[in-house]
Amino acid sequence: MKIAPKITRLSPDDQNEYKIDIKDDLPLYVQLTNLIKRQISEKFWKLDEMIPSENELAATYNVSVGTVKKALSFLVDEGVLYRRQGKGTFISRPDFNRSFMRFFRYGADENQTGRDLISKVLSLNITYPGEKIKEALELEEKDKIIFIKRIRYLNDLPVMLQNIHLPYKIFKGFEKIDTSRKLLYPIYEEKFKTPVVWAEEELWPTIADHQAAEALEIKKGDPVISIERIVYTYGDKPIEFRNSVGRGDKFRYKIEIR
Amino acid sequence: MKIAPKITRLSPDDQNEYKIDIKDDLPLYVQLTNLIKRQISEKFWKLDEMIPSENELAATYNVSVGTVKKALSFLVDEGVLYRRQGKGTFISRPDFNRSFMRFFRYGADENQTGRDLISKVLSLNITYPGEKIKEALELEEKDKIIFIKRIRYLNDLPVMLQNIHLPYKIFKGFEKIDTSRKLLYPIYEEKFKTPVVWAEEELWPTIADHQAAEALEIKKGDPVISIERIVYTYGDKPIEFRNSVGRGDKFRYKIEIR
Repeated sequence: MKIAPKITRLSPDDQNEYKIDIKDDLPLYVQLTNLIKRQISEKFWKLDEMIPSENELAATYNVSVGTVKKALSFLVDEGVLYRRQGKGTFISRPDFNRSFMRFFRYGADENQTGRDLISKVLSLNITYPGEKIKEALELEEKDKIIFIKRIRYLNDLPVMLQNIHLPYKIFKGFEKIDTSRKLLYPIYEEKFKTPVVWAEEELWPTIADHQAAEALEIKKGDPVISIERIVYTYGDKPIEFRNSVGRGDKFRYKIEIR
Repeated sequence: MKIAPKITRLSPDDQNEYKIDIKDDLPLYVQLTNLIKRQISEKFWKLDEMIPSENELAATYNVSVGTVKKALSFLVDEGVLYRRQGKGTFISRPDFNRSFMRFFRYGADENQTGRDLISKVLSLNITYPGEKIKEALELEEKDKIIFIKRIRYLNDLPVMLQNIHLPYKIFKGFEKIDTSRKLLYPIYEEKFKTPVVWAEEELWPTIADHQAAEALEIKKGDPVISIERIVYTYGDKPIEFRNSVGRGDKFRYKIEIR
Protein backbone atom coordinates (compact mmCIF):
# COMPACT_ATOMS: atom_id res chain seq x y z
CA MET A 1 0.00 0.00 0.00
CA LYS A 2 1.54 3.27 -1.11
CA ILE A 3 0.91 6.65 0.41
CA ALA A 4 -0.62 9.17 -1.95
CA PRO A 5 1.41 12.25 -2.79
CA LYS A 6 0.44 15.19 -0.64
CA ILE A 7 -1.95 17.49 -2.33
CA THR A 8 0.35 20.42 -1.62
CA ARG A 9 2.71 19.05 -4.27
CA LEU A 10 0.28 20.13 -7.00
CA SER A 11 1.47 22.67 -9.50
CA PRO A 12 0.08 26.22 -9.06
CA ASP A 13 -2.39 25.62 -11.88
CA ASP A 14 -3.69 22.40 -10.36
CA GLN A 15 -3.95 23.96 -6.94
CA ASN A 16 -6.25 26.50 -8.38
CA GLU A 17 -8.38 23.76 -9.93
CA TYR A 18 -8.78 21.90 -6.63
CA LYS A 19 -9.69 24.89 -4.49
CA ILE A 20 -12.90 25.27 -2.53
CA ASP A 21 -14.96 28.26 -3.56
CA ILE A 22 -16.20 30.11 -0.50
CA LYS A 23 -18.76 31.97 -2.61
CA ASP A 24 -20.35 28.68 -3.68
CA ASP A 25 -23.80 28.07 -2.15
CA LEU A 26 -23.14 24.44 -1.16
CA PRO A 27 -21.95 23.70 2.39
CA LEU A 28 -18.17 23.45 2.60
CA TYR A 29 -18.12 19.74 3.46
CA VAL A 30 -20.29 18.93 0.41
CA GLN A 31 -17.91 20.87 -1.80
CA LEU A 32 -15.03 18.98 -0.24
CA THR A 33 -16.66 15.58 -0.88
CA ASN A 34 -17.17 16.53 -4.53
CA LEU A 35 -13.60 17.71 -4.78
CA ILE A 36 -12.23 14.47 -3.33
CA LYS A 37 -14.36 12.38 -5.69
CA ARG A 38 -13.08 14.41 -8.61
CA GLN A 39 -9.50 13.88 -7.53
CA ILE A 40 -10.04 10.15 -7.38
CA SER A 41 -11.75 10.03 -10.75
CA GLU A 42 -8.98 12.13 -12.27
CA LYS A 43 -6.46 9.62 -10.95
CA PHE A 44 -4.72 12.06 -8.65
CA TRP A 45 -5.31 9.49 -5.90
CA LYS A 46 -5.28 5.80 -6.77
CA LEU A 47 -7.30 2.80 -5.58
CA ASP A 48 -6.08 1.47 -2.23
CA GLU A 49 -3.84 4.48 -1.66
CA MET A 50 -3.85 6.27 1.65
CA ILE A 51 -5.03 9.85 1.52
CA PRO A 52 -3.39 12.62 3.59
CA SER A 53 -4.35 13.11 7.26
CA GLU A 54 -7.32 15.22 8.31
CA ASN A 55 -4.97 17.99 9.44
CA GLU A 56 -3.09 17.99 6.15
CA LEU A 57 -6.32 18.09 4.17
CA ALA A 58 -7.65 20.93 6.31
CA ALA A 59 -4.46 22.95 5.72
CA THR A 60 -4.41 22.20 1.98
CA TYR A 61 -8.01 23.23 1.37
CA ASN A 62 -8.04 25.97 3.97
CA VAL A 63 -11.06 24.56 5.81
CA SER A 64 -11.55 23.42 9.41
CA VAL A 65 -10.67 19.90 10.56
CA GLY A 66 -14.38 19.54 11.42
CA THR A 67 -15.31 20.08 7.77
CA VAL A 68 -12.72 17.53 6.67
CA LYS A 69 -14.02 15.00 9.23
CA LYS A 70 -17.57 15.48 8.00
CA ALA A 71 -16.59 15.08 4.35
CA LEU A 72 -14.54 11.96 5.04
CA SER A 73 -17.32 10.37 7.15
CA PHE A 74 -19.73 10.94 4.31
CA LEU A 75 -17.36 9.39 1.77
CA VAL A 76 -16.76 6.41 4.07
CA ASP A 77 -20.55 5.93 4.37
CA GLU A 78 -20.84 6.12 0.59
CA GLY A 79 -18.10 3.53 0.19
CA VAL A 80 -15.71 5.83 -1.68
CA LEU A 81 -13.21 5.71 1.19
CA TYR A 82 -12.51 3.17 3.89
CA ARG A 83 -10.70 3.45 7.22
CA ARG A 84 -8.11 1.21 8.77
CA GLN A 85 -7.89 1.46 12.53
CA GLY A 86 -4.66 3.21 13.49
CA LYS A 87 -3.46 3.50 9.88
CA GLY A 88 -5.47 6.02 7.96
CA THR A 89 -8.11 6.55 5.29
CA PHE A 90 -7.84 4.83 1.92
CA ILE A 91 -9.49 4.91 -1.49
CA SER A 92 -11.90 1.96 -1.81
CA ARG A 93 -11.82 -0.72 -4.43
CA PRO A 94 -15.25 -1.74 -5.70
CA ASP A 95 -16.75 -4.63 -3.76
CA PHE A 96 -17.92 -7.31 -6.17
CA ASN A 97 -19.32 -9.53 -3.40
CA ARG A 98 -22.78 -8.14 -4.15
CA SER A 99 -22.44 -8.83 -7.89
CA PHE A 100 -25.28 -10.90 -9.32
CA MET A 101 -22.66 -13.16 -10.87
CA ARG A 102 -21.65 -14.35 -7.41
CA PHE A 103 -25.07 -15.88 -6.69
CA PHE A 104 -24.87 -19.13 -8.60
CA ARG A 105 -24.86 -22.30 -6.53
CA TYR A 106 -23.56 -25.73 -7.15
CA GLY A 107 -25.54 -28.61 -5.70
CA ALA A 108 -27.18 -28.13 -2.31
CA ASP A 109 -24.43 -25.99 -0.82
CA GLU A 110 -25.95 -22.60 -0.09
CA ASN A 111 -22.64 -20.98 0.63
CA GLN A 112 -20.89 -21.94 -2.55
CA THR A 113 -21.48 -18.80 -4.50
CA GLY A 114 -19.20 -18.82 -7.48
CA ARG A 115 -15.75 -18.64 -6.02
CA ASP A 116 -14.49 -21.66 -7.98
CA LEU A 117 -15.41 -20.31 -11.39
CA ILE A 118 -13.29 -21.15 -14.43
CA SER A 119 -13.95 -20.15 -18.03
CA LYS A 120 -13.81 -21.64 -21.47
CA VAL A 121 -13.43 -19.11 -24.27
CA LEU A 122 -15.61 -20.10 -27.23
CA SER A 123 -14.53 -17.28 -29.52
CA LEU A 124 -12.59 -14.03 -29.57
CA ASN A 125 -12.95 -11.52 -32.38
CA ILE A 126 -11.92 -7.99 -33.17
CA THR A 127 -14.97 -6.45 -34.75
CA TYR A 128 -17.30 -3.44 -34.98
CA PRO A 129 -19.93 -3.11 -32.26
CA GLY A 130 -23.70 -2.86 -32.67
CA GLU A 131 -25.58 0.28 -31.63
CA LYS A 132 -26.27 -0.80 -28.05
CA ILE A 133 -22.66 -1.72 -27.26
CA LYS A 134 -21.37 1.39 -29.02
CA GLU A 135 -23.57 3.54 -26.86
CA ALA A 136 -22.81 1.71 -23.61
CA LEU A 137 -19.05 1.97 -24.23
CA GLU A 138 -19.29 5.55 -25.58
CA LEU A 139 -17.44 4.59 -28.77
CA GLU A 140 -16.99 6.55 -31.97
CA GLU A 141 -17.91 5.39 -35.45
CA LYS A 142 -14.42 4.10 -36.28
CA ASP A 143 -13.81 2.31 -32.93
CA LYS A 144 -13.50 -1.47 -32.89
CA ILE A 145 -14.12 -3.82 -29.98
CA ILE A 146 -12.70 -7.09 -28.74
CA PHE A 147 -15.64 -9.49 -28.53
CA ILE A 148 -15.23 -12.56 -26.31
CA LYS A 149 -17.79 -15.31 -25.93
CA ARG A 150 -17.15 -17.71 -23.07
CA ILE A 151 -18.77 -20.18 -20.72
CA ARG A 152 -18.29 -19.89 -16.97
CA TYR A 153 -18.15 -23.14 -15.04
CA LEU A 154 -18.87 -23.60 -11.36
CA ASN A 155 -16.83 -26.70 -10.70
CA ASP A 156 -17.88 -28.77 -13.74
CA LEU A 157 -21.27 -27.21 -14.23
CA PRO A 158 -21.79 -24.56 -16.94
CA VAL A 159 -23.64 -21.73 -15.16
CA MET A 160 -23.21 -18.66 -17.40
CA LEU A 161 -22.80 -17.87 -21.07
CA GLN A 162 -21.08 -14.51 -21.36
CA ASN A 163 -20.44 -11.97 -24.08
CA ILE A 164 -17.70 -9.53 -23.12
CA HIS A 165 -17.09 -6.37 -25.16
CA LEU A 166 -13.94 -4.28 -24.71
CA PRO A 167 -12.87 -1.09 -26.52
CA TYR A 168 -9.98 -2.11 -28.78
CA LYS A 169 -8.22 1.22 -28.42
CA ILE A 170 -7.78 0.57 -24.69
CA PHE A 171 -7.21 -3.19 -24.74
CA LYS A 172 -5.11 -3.72 -27.87
CA GLY A 173 -3.08 -6.91 -27.27
CA PHE A 174 -5.64 -8.42 -24.89
CA GLU A 175 -6.52 -10.94 -27.60
CA LYS A 176 -3.13 -12.62 -27.09
CA ILE A 177 -3.61 -13.30 -23.36
CA ASP A 178 -4.82 -16.68 -22.07
CA THR A 179 -7.57 -15.73 -19.61
CA SER A 180 -9.11 -19.14 -18.91
CA ARG A 181 -7.82 -19.36 -15.35
CA LYS A 182 -7.27 -15.68 -14.63
CA LEU A 183 -9.46 -12.90 -13.38
CA LEU A 184 -9.89 -10.20 -16.00
CA TYR A 185 -9.89 -7.11 -13.80
CA PRO A 186 -6.34 -7.48 -12.48
CA ILE A 187 -5.26 -7.83 -16.13
CA TYR A 188 -7.08 -4.60 -17.07
CA GLU A 189 -5.28 -2.83 -14.25
CA GLU A 190 -1.80 -4.33 -14.50
CA LYS A 191 -1.33 -4.79 -18.23
CA PHE A 192 -3.52 -1.97 -19.53
CA LYS A 193 -3.27 0.56 -16.65
CA THR A 194 -7.06 0.70 -16.57
CA PRO A 195 -8.40 -0.20 -13.12
CA VAL A 196 -12.04 -1.01 -12.48
CA VAL A 197 -13.39 1.81 -10.31
CA TRP A 198 -17.11 0.96 -10.27
CA ALA A 199 -19.73 -1.01 -12.14
CA GLU A 200 -23.47 -1.22 -12.63
CA GLU A 201 -25.47 -4.40 -13.09
CA GLU A 202 -29.03 -5.08 -14.12
CA LEU A 203 -30.92 -8.38 -14.07
CA TRP A 204 -34.21 -9.69 -15.40
CA PRO A 205 -35.66 -13.12 -16.15
CA THR A 206 -35.77 -14.62 -19.64
CA ILE A 207 -35.98 -18.07 -21.19
CA ALA A 208 -33.15 -19.97 -22.86
CA ASP A 209 -32.81 -19.74 -26.63
CA HIS A 210 -31.14 -22.53 -28.58
CA GLN A 211 -27.61 -21.21 -28.09
CA ALA A 212 -27.98 -20.62 -24.33
CA ALA A 213 -29.63 -24.00 -23.85
CA GLU A 214 -26.76 -25.77 -25.58
CA ALA A 215 -24.06 -23.88 -23.67
CA LEU A 216 -25.74 -24.29 -20.28
CA GLU A 217 -26.84 -27.88 -20.85
CA ILE A 218 -30.52 -27.11 -20.29
CA LYS A 219 -33.58 -27.14 -22.54
CA LYS A 220 -34.75 -24.38 -24.84
CA GLY A 221 -37.49 -22.48 -22.97
CA ASP A 222 -36.02 -23.18 -19.53
CA PRO A 223 -35.79 -20.17 -17.21
CA VAL A 224 -32.53 -18.21 -17.30
CA ILE A 225 -31.37 -15.03 -15.64
CA SER A 226 -30.11 -12.22 -17.89
CA ILE A 227 -27.39 -10.04 -16.41
CA GLU A 228 -25.91 -6.90 -17.93
CA ARG A 229 -22.84 -5.23 -16.50
CA ILE A 230 -21.09 -2.01 -17.48
CA VAL A 231 -17.69 -1.44 -15.89
CA TYR A 232 -16.14 2.00 -15.43
CA THR A 233 -12.63 3.23 -14.84
CA TYR A 234 -11.53 6.68 -13.64
CA GLY A 235 -13.66 9.60 -14.76
CA ASP A 236 -16.76 7.37 -15.19
CA LYS A 237 -15.34 6.10 -18.47
CA PRO A 238 -16.92 2.77 -19.56
CA ILE A 239 -14.36 0.05 -20.33
CA GLU A 240 -16.37 -3.17 -20.47
CA PHE A 241 -19.88 -4.19 -21.45
CA ARG A 242 -20.80 -7.71 -20.47
CA ASN A 243 -24.09 -9.50 -21.04
CA SER A 244 -24.65 -12.95 -19.60
CA VAL A 245 -27.37 -15.54 -19.34
CA GLY A 246 -27.19 -17.89 -16.38
CA ARG A 247 -28.96 -21.10 -15.38
CA GLY A 248 -32.13 -20.13 -13.54
CA ASP A 249 -32.18 -23.27 -11.45
CA LYS A 250 -28.76 -22.44 -9.97
CA PHE A 251 -29.39 -18.77 -9.31
CA ARG A 252 -30.75 -17.12 -6.16
CA TYR A 253 -30.09 -13.49 -5.32
CA LYS A 254 -30.70 -12.47 -1.73
CA ILE A 255 -30.84 -9.11 0.03
CA GLU A 256 -31.62 -7.85 3.49
CA ILE A 257 -33.80 -4.81 3.95
CA ARG A 258 -32.96 -2.86 7.10
CA MET B 1 -41.27 11.85 16.84
CA LYS B 2 -41.12 10.87 20.49
CA ILE B 3 -38.05 10.85 22.65
CA ALA B 4 -37.17 7.44 24.06
CA PRO B 5 -37.23 7.05 27.83
CA LYS B 6 -33.81 7.52 29.33
CA ILE B 7 -32.08 4.28 29.96
CA THR B 8 -31.48 5.32 33.56
CA ARG B 9 -35.19 4.80 34.17
CA LEU B 10 -34.70 1.05 33.95
CA SER B 11 -35.60 -1.00 36.99
CA PRO B 12 -32.60 -2.34 38.97
CA ASP B 13 -33.11 -5.77 37.40
CA ASP B 14 -33.09 -4.41 33.87
CA GLN B 15 -30.10 -2.23 34.60
CA ASN B 16 -28.21 -5.31 35.48
CA GLU B 17 -29.27 -6.97 32.24
CA TYR B 18 -28.09 -4.08 30.09
CA LYS B 19 -24.68 -3.62 31.67
CA ILE B 20 -21.38 -3.87 29.86
CA ASP B 21 -19.11 -6.59 31.17
CA ILE B 22 -15.57 -5.30 31.55
CA LYS B 23 -14.23 -8.85 31.79
CA ASP B 24 -15.65 -9.67 28.36
CA ASP B 25 -12.98 -10.14 25.68
CA LEU B 26 -14.73 -8.04 23.04
CA PRO B 27 -13.79 -4.35 22.71
CA LEU B 28 -16.12 -2.11 24.71
CA TYR B 29 -17.62 -0.40 21.67
CA VAL B 30 -18.52 -3.78 20.10
CA GLN B 31 -20.24 -4.80 23.33
CA LEU B 32 -22.10 -1.51 23.30
CA THR B 33 -23.29 -1.98 19.69
CA ASN B 34 -24.60 -5.45 20.62
CA LEU B 35 -26.32 -4.05 23.69
CA ILE B 36 -28.03 -1.30 21.69
CA LYS B 37 -29.22 -3.78 19.07
CA ARG B 38 -30.65 -5.98 21.82
CA GLN B 39 -32.46 -3.06 23.37
CA ILE B 40 -34.05 -2.22 20.01
CA SER B 41 -35.05 -5.82 19.34
CA GLU B 42 -36.51 -6.10 22.85
CA LYS B 43 -38.61 -3.03 22.14
CA PHE B 44 -37.02 -0.91 24.83
CA TRP B 45 -36.42 1.67 22.08
CA LYS B 46 -38.91 1.97 19.26
CA LEU B 47 -38.59 2.65 15.51
CA ASP B 48 -38.08 6.35 14.75
CA GLU B 49 -37.51 7.18 18.39
CA MET B 50 -34.60 9.36 19.43
CA ILE B 51 -32.03 7.66 21.61
CA PRO B 52 -30.36 9.49 24.53
CA SER B 53 -27.37 11.79 23.90
CA GLU B 54 -23.81 10.49 23.75
CA ASN B 55 -23.10 11.91 27.20
CA GLU B 56 -26.16 10.26 28.71
CA LEU B 57 -25.31 6.91 27.13
CA ALA B 58 -21.72 7.17 28.38
CA ALA B 59 -22.94 7.86 31.91
CA THR B 60 -25.54 5.09 31.81
CA TYR B 61 -23.17 2.40 30.61
CA ASN B 62 -20.15 3.75 32.46
CA VAL B 63 -18.00 3.98 29.32
CA SER B 64 -16.20 6.92 27.71
CA VAL B 65 -17.94 9.24 25.26
CA GLY B 66 -15.37 8.05 22.70
CA THR B 67 -16.64 4.48 23.05
CA VAL B 68 -20.24 5.66 22.63
CA LYS B 69 -19.29 7.69 19.54
CA LYS B 70 -17.59 4.68 17.99
CA ALA B 71 -20.53 2.38 18.70
CA LEU B 72 -23.05 4.86 17.31
CA SER B 73 -20.97 5.48 14.15
CA PHE B 74 -20.86 1.76 13.56
CA LEU B 75 -24.63 1.40 14.01
CA VAL B 76 -25.25 4.36 11.68
CA ASP B 77 -23.03 2.71 9.05
CA GLU B 78 -24.94 -0.54 9.50
CA GLY B 79 -28.23 1.31 9.07
CA VAL B 80 -29.56 0.46 12.55
CA LEU B 81 -29.48 4.12 13.55
CA TYR B 82 -29.68 7.34 11.59
CA ARG B 83 -28.69 10.89 12.46
CA ARG B 84 -30.57 14.13 11.98
CA GLN B 85 -28.38 17.19 11.84
CA GLY B 86 -28.85 19.22 15.02
CA LYS B 87 -31.54 16.90 16.40
CA GLY B 88 -30.06 13.61 17.50
CA THR B 89 -29.73 9.92 16.70
CA PHE B 90 -32.78 7.81 15.90
CA ILE B 91 -33.72 4.17 15.42
CA SER B 92 -34.01 3.43 11.68
CA ARG B 93 -37.04 2.08 9.90
CA PRO B 94 -36.25 -0.48 7.21
CA ASP B 95 -35.76 1.08 3.78
CA PHE B 96 -37.91 -0.75 1.25
CA ASN B 97 -36.62 1.31 -1.68
CA ARG B 98 -34.22 -1.51 -2.52
CA SER B 99 -37.00 -4.13 -2.42
CA PHE B 100 -37.23 -6.23 -5.56
CA MET B 101 -40.95 -5.43 -5.64
CA ARG B 102 -40.14 -1.80 -6.43
CA PHE B 103 -38.47 -2.65 -9.73
CA PHE B 104 -41.45 -3.17 -11.98
CA ARG B 105 -41.92 -0.67 -14.75
CA TYR B 106 -44.92 0.49 -16.65
CA GLY B 107 -44.38 1.42 -20.29
CA ALA B 108 -41.18 3.13 -21.28
CA ASP B 109 -40.81 5.19 -18.13
CA GLU B 110 -37.65 4.03 -16.40
CA ASN B 111 -38.36 5.91 -13.21
CA GLN B 112 -41.81 4.58 -12.60
CA THR B 113 -40.94 1.82 -10.19
CA GLY B 114 -44.09 0.67 -8.53
CA ARG B 115 -45.24 3.62 -6.52
CA ASP B 116 -48.76 3.57 -7.99
CA LEU B 117 -49.48 -0.02 -7.03
CA ILE B 118 -52.99 -1.08 -6.09
CA SER B 119 -54.17 -4.57 -5.24
CA LYS B 120 -57.09 -6.84 -5.96
CA VAL B 121 -57.61 -9.56 -3.38
CA LEU B 122 -58.56 -12.82 -5.09
CA SER B 123 -59.07 -14.84 -1.92
CA LEU B 124 -58.52 -14.73 1.83
CA ASN B 125 -58.62 -17.85 3.96
CA ILE B 126 -57.82 -18.89 7.48
CA THR B 127 -56.07 -22.21 7.12
CA TYR B 128 -53.21 -24.45 8.17
CA PRO B 129 -49.83 -23.78 6.56
CA GLY B 130 -47.66 -26.19 4.61
CA GLU B 131 -44.24 -27.23 5.88
CA LYS B 132 -42.28 -24.46 4.18
CA ILE B 133 -44.48 -21.64 5.48
CA LYS B 134 -44.64 -23.21 8.94
CA GLU B 135 -40.88 -23.25 9.11
CA ALA B 136 -40.41 -19.74 7.69
CA LEU B 137 -42.91 -18.29 10.19
CA GLU B 138 -41.65 -20.49 13.07
CA LEU B 139 -45.16 -21.78 13.77
CA GLU B 140 -46.28 -24.64 15.99
CA GLU B 141 -48.41 -27.58 14.92
CA LYS B 142 -51.71 -26.02 16.03
CA ASP B 143 -51.06 -22.53 14.58
CA LYS B 144 -53.22 -21.29 11.72
CA ILE B 145 -52.38 -18.66 9.14
CA ILE B 146 -54.25 -16.00 7.21
CA PHE B 147 -53.62 -16.77 3.53
CA ILE B 148 -54.21 -13.93 1.06
CA LYS B 149 -53.92 -14.26 -2.68
CA ARG B 150 -53.89 -10.97 -4.58
CA ILE B 151 -52.86 -9.28 -7.79
CA ARG B 152 -50.79 -6.12 -7.71
CA TYR B 153 -51.47 -3.62 -10.47
CA LEU B 154 -49.10 -0.94 -11.69
CA ASN B 155 -51.60 1.53 -13.07
CA ASP B 156 -53.86 -0.89 -14.97
CA LEU B 157 -51.26 -3.53 -15.65
CA PRO B 158 -51.14 -6.69 -13.51
CA VAL B 159 -47.45 -7.04 -12.56
CA MET B 160 -47.40 -9.45 -9.58
CA LEU B 161 -49.39 -12.37 -8.27
CA GLN B 162 -48.80 -12.58 -4.53
CA ASN B 163 -49.43 -15.12 -1.80
CA ILE B 164 -49.21 -13.54 1.65
CA HIS B 165 -49.10 -15.71 4.78
CA LEU B 166 -49.63 -14.23 8.25
CA PRO B 167 -49.64 -15.98 11.66
CA TYR B 168 -53.28 -15.96 12.81
CA LYS B 169 -52.36 -15.63 16.47
CA ILE B 170 -50.77 -12.24 15.74
CA PHE B 171 -53.14 -10.94 13.08
CA LYS B 172 -56.55 -12.17 14.26
CA GLY B 173 -59.11 -9.73 12.83
CA PHE B 174 -56.97 -8.80 9.84
CA GLU B 175 -59.37 -10.72 7.63
CA LYS B 176 -62.03 -8.04 8.21
CA ILE B 177 -59.91 -5.13 6.94
CA ASP B 178 -60.22 -3.83 3.37
CA THR B 179 -56.60 -3.61 2.22
CA SER B 180 -57.07 -2.95 -1.50
CA ARG B 181 -55.87 0.65 -1.36
CA LYS B 182 -53.82 0.52 1.83
CA LEU B 183 -50.27 -0.42 2.61
CA LEU B 184 -50.09 -3.48 4.83
CA TYR B 185 -47.15 -2.57 7.05
CA PRO B 186 -48.72 0.49 8.69
CA ILE B 187 -51.72 -1.76 9.48
CA TYR B 188 -49.44 -4.36 11.11
CA GLU B 189 -47.93 -1.63 13.25
CA GLU B 190 -50.98 0.45 14.12
CA LYS B 191 -53.71 -2.15 14.46
CA PHE B 192 -51.64 -5.14 15.60
CA LYS B 193 -48.75 -3.40 17.42
CA THR B 194 -46.34 -5.41 15.29
CA PRO B 195 -43.96 -3.13 13.38
CA VAL B 196 -41.82 -4.34 10.52
CA VAL B 197 -38.21 -4.12 11.71
CA TRP B 198 -36.39 -5.84 8.85
CA ALA B 199 -36.95 -8.20 5.94
CA GLU B 200 -35.09 -10.54 3.63
CA GLU B 201 -35.84 -11.12 -0.02
CA GLU B 202 -34.68 -13.67 -2.54
CA LEU B 203 -35.28 -13.73 -6.30
CA TRP B 204 -34.76 -16.20 -9.13
CA PRO B 205 -36.15 -16.62 -12.64
CA THR B 206 -38.95 -19.05 -13.48
CA ILE B 207 -41.57 -19.45 -16.17
CA ALA B 208 -45.29 -18.76 -15.85
CA ASP B 209 -47.60 -21.66 -15.00
CA HIS B 210 -51.25 -21.54 -16.03
CA GLN B 211 -52.40 -19.64 -12.93
CA ALA B 212 -49.64 -16.99 -13.13
CA ALA B 213 -50.17 -16.55 -16.87
CA GLU B 214 -53.87 -15.92 -16.38
CA ALA B 215 -53.37 -13.47 -13.50
CA LEU B 216 -50.56 -11.55 -15.22
CA GLU B 217 -52.17 -11.59 -18.69
CA ILE B 218 -49.19 -13.34 -20.30
CA LYS B 219 -48.67 -16.75 -21.86
CA LYS B 220 -47.85 -19.97 -20.06
CA GLY B 221 -44.07 -20.49 -20.37
CA ASP B 222 -43.31 -16.74 -20.49
CA PRO B 223 -40.47 -15.60 -18.22
CA VAL B 224 -41.45 -14.45 -14.72
CA ILE B 225 -39.47 -13.40 -11.70
CA SER B 226 -40.06 -15.29 -8.44
CA ILE B 227 -39.67 -13.25 -5.27
CA GLU B 228 -39.80 -14.53 -1.71
CA ARG B 229 -39.91 -12.20 1.27
CA ILE B 230 -39.83 -12.92 4.99
CA VAL B 231 -40.64 -9.99 7.25
CA TYR B 232 -39.47 -9.74 10.86
CA THR B 233 -40.59 -7.71 13.85
CA TYR B 234 -38.70 -7.11 17.10
CA GLY B 235 -36.51 -9.94 18.31
CA ASP B 236 -36.08 -11.33 14.78
CA LYS B 237 -39.54 -12.84 14.97
CA PRO B 238 -41.01 -13.64 11.52
CA ILE B 239 -44.48 -12.15 10.93
CA GLU B 240 -45.06 -12.45 7.20
CA PHE B 241 -44.06 -14.84 4.43
CA ARG B 242 -44.81 -13.59 0.95
CA ASN B 243 -44.11 -15.31 -2.34
CA SER B 244 -44.77 -13.52 -5.60
CA VAL B 245 -44.34 -14.06 -9.29
CA GLY B 246 -43.96 -10.96 -11.42
CA ARG B 247 -44.03 -10.24 -15.14
CA GLY B 248 -40.50 -10.73 -16.45
CA ASP B 249 -40.92 -8.22 -19.27
CA LYS B 250 -41.68 -5.44 -16.75
CA PHE B 251 -38.94 -6.26 -14.26
CA ARG B 252 -35.38 -4.91 -14.12
CA TYR B 253 -33.34 -4.88 -10.94
CA LYS B 254 -30.32 -2.62 -10.92
CA ILE B 255 -27.40 -2.22 -8.53
CA GLU B 256 -24.22 -0.21 -8.41
CA ILE B 257 -20.99 -1.85 -7.32
CA ARG B 258 -18.61 0.60 -5.65
